[in-house]
Amino acid sequence: MNTVVLKFGGSSVSDNINLNIVAQKIIEFKKENNVVCVVSAQGKTTDNLIKEAKELSAIPNEREMDVLLSTGEQVSASKLAILLNMLGHKAISLTGWQAGIYTNSDYQSSKVVDINTSRINKEIEDGKIVVVTGFQGIDKYSNITTLGRGGSDTTAVALAAALKAEHCYIFSDVDGVYTADPKSVKLAHKLSSISYEEMSYISGEGAKVLHDRCVELAEKYDMPIITASTFNTHKGTKISNCMEDTVIKSIIKNDNILLVKIGNIELPYNLINKLINENIKIGKYIIKGKYAEFTINKTDRAKLEKMLDKKNYNISIESVTKISVVGSGISNHPEILKKILDVFKDINENILEIDVSACKISILFSEIVDIKYLNNLHDKCCCKK
Amino acid sequence: MNTVVLKFGGSSVSDNINLNIVAQKIIEFKKENNVVCVVSAQGKTTDNLIKEAKELSAIPNEREMDVLLSTGEQVSASKLAILLNMLGHKAISLTGWQAGIYTNSDYQSSKVVDINTSRINKEIEDGKIVVVTGFQGIDKYSNITTLGRGGSDTTAVALAAALKAEHCYIFSDVDGVYTADPKSVKLAHKLSSISYEEMSYISGEGAKVLHDRCVELAEKYDMPIITASTFNTHKGTKISNCMEDTVIKSIIKNDNILLVKIGNIELPYNLINKLINENIKIGKYIIKGKYAEFTINKTDRAKLEKMLDKKNYNISIESVTKISVVGSGISNHPEILKKILDVFKDINENILEIDVSACKISILFSEIVDIKYLNNLHDKCCCKK
Repeated sequence: MNTVVLKFGGSSVSDNINLNIVAQKIIEFKKENNVVCVVSAQGKTTDNLIKEAKELSAIPNEREMDVLLSTGEQVSASKLAILLNMLGHKAISLTGWQAGIYTNSDYQSSKVVDINTSRINKEIEDGKIVVVTGFQGIDKYSNITTLGRGGSDTTAVALAAALKAEHCYIFSDVDGVYTADPKSVKLAHKLSSISYEEMSYISGEGAKVLHDRCVELAEKYDMPIITASTFNTHKGTKISNCMEDTVIKSIIKNDNILLVKIGNIELPYNLINKLINENIKIGKYIIKGKYAEFTINKTDRAKLEKMLDKKNYNISIESVTKISVVGSGISNHPEILKKILDVFKDINENILEIDVSACKISILFSEIVDIKYLNNLHDKCCCKK
Repeated sequence: MNTVVLKFGGSSVSDNINLNIVAQKIIEFKKENNVVCVVSAQGKTTDNLIKEAKELSAIPNEREMDVLLSTGEQVSASKLAILLNMLGHKAISLTGWQAGIYTNSDYQSSKVVDINTSRINKEIEDGKIVVVTGFQGIDKYSNITTLGRGGSDTTAVALAAALKAEHCYIFSDVDGVYTADPKSVKLAHKLSSISYEEMSYISGEGAKVLHDRCVELAEKYDMPIITASTFNTHKGTKISNCMEDTVIKSIIKNDNILLVKIGNIELPYNLINKLINENIKIGKYIIKGKYAEFTINKTDRAKLEKMLDKKNYNISIESVTKISVVGSGISNHPEILKKILDVFKDINENILEIDVSACKISILFSEIVDIKYLNNLHDKCCCKK
């Protein structure tokens, strides 16, 4: 019998009504497959735990944060197993360490280094539905680690690869990958398939469909992902080695970027090393003598401020927007860049940087860009003729 | 340096203000001791998790309940460690499995069978305050188990014994062991010391000072327990091998007992075996032909009803009161029994049973007894002259 991995996100397991919908979906798959589920924490649980920790400490100890945050998935996994058992289907929850998910020790952004599937396989052989807590593992010293926000997607793909599953389904409240965020762009439409590489660019640019590392992992092991909705039966988007003929796949607007400008630094290359050591993910990075300019994610702001604390730097930090257009071979079509720039002609003085690569064109603006530009861009580049 | 184990109950860690009080207490002990803390879940967390599980299933799968419930202590332990680190004291949280607490597989009422202290000792040697999640462990198959309600007390004493600690402190919102529940009996007063045996009778009769199994364990390893308040610096009650000269130590009124009467049973001894298999704790148990009568804790009602489901028994279940008077050698003082019965002379027709043993006199009533009788009894038997 084939094994499938089904991953359900936080909004899919947010309350008892949704847990019942999830359970029915699982039971349907169980008829013809061995089923391993991966679940996120319920609804806003992780956000709430972070908030509570920050009330105790502005920069909470990172090891302890992982101990705290990992409880969210343990709650949802055990609840789902309780429900499945009640419905007459044998089910067992396994935490990250019980499921044999080993990671390195980078708390809050650990990487999966190995999966020992013996316990999961034993439970599958017993005919059980296995519910694994997403987002977490243990390091070689038996400390609890987490994979970073959205890490449950990575857990699902890593498990699917280790179990040689047929497919990895990622269920959420959106029913696939769209040409743009359908909440912002009226005419956005769903793609039936997309390549790993394209998806990886889309995720990397901040679209909240899939955790970016999970796509990388899926490509590495050629594990097809199907993203679909928990709440309907529409066909989702398949992410695999396939290629489609249209050039532009998706456009993404990312407002969660901070542009940091620092003057008066003594050893510029020391600064970048410190950023890496503190696990602050850098976007672009420019050094001119004693002046440095770089982008980071909004979520790393507290880490950065702690790192720069007590230093005599001259700092400014501003919110900026990055708009990215993703599609294989996009750099071979100069008319696309022309079309894009045309959309932004009345705010072209705010363009800080344009970056063109084989699969992606990104434009960084010096301030937050109004949503109407995204709609214009989608109308011009992504609408079906 | 001496090692002490400090246990903090749910009300002691219920919110950030209380966590700060707890942290200050720990830091004070750390000045002169190695400190291992054991924490319960915050406030009503465990009750809420049970409620949520029962919304999914009337009788939730027991293994999964333990996975769910164990998250409560993981949250409080990591929060306390975050706070202690923020205050400049190196601290690390360890879950039951990380702390090497091995139990049997009786989900929801597991017994500690072994503690591997190597990880805790390593962290102590590193100068860290070790915060261990109470109430939980793992069985030999790496399943998460819990020790039953109030099990954190048992965790603390078991750890203290395994670590050869000097004392085990149990901090809560009451500042010691009283001659009766001070919420019900105005003249109740605190005992400065009491023997293990007496304490074990007091806990066994339902007084919510200490988990009954923890006292048994403390006696077995001669580990002195000091119960004291988290919220003041009053001297608590020491529970050890010492003996005091007064006979009556404490009186306890327990209204959480159900009297079950079953008629028309075919094999009486099968019934008692089933109760044991279902982990339903029996108080008194009487069989007369096809009729059985026994007492259980209110908390086991759902289990009992599930067990008796579909059977053609003739059943009645009623709430009753048991009043117990505890003191070493009480049976050698017949005048005490006389005094006790005198207090209940106007409700003597409700007395179902009187049980006299070396350390305890218990009286079971056929209905809930008014609190005024407890006050009268305390006035007559426990008030300092």
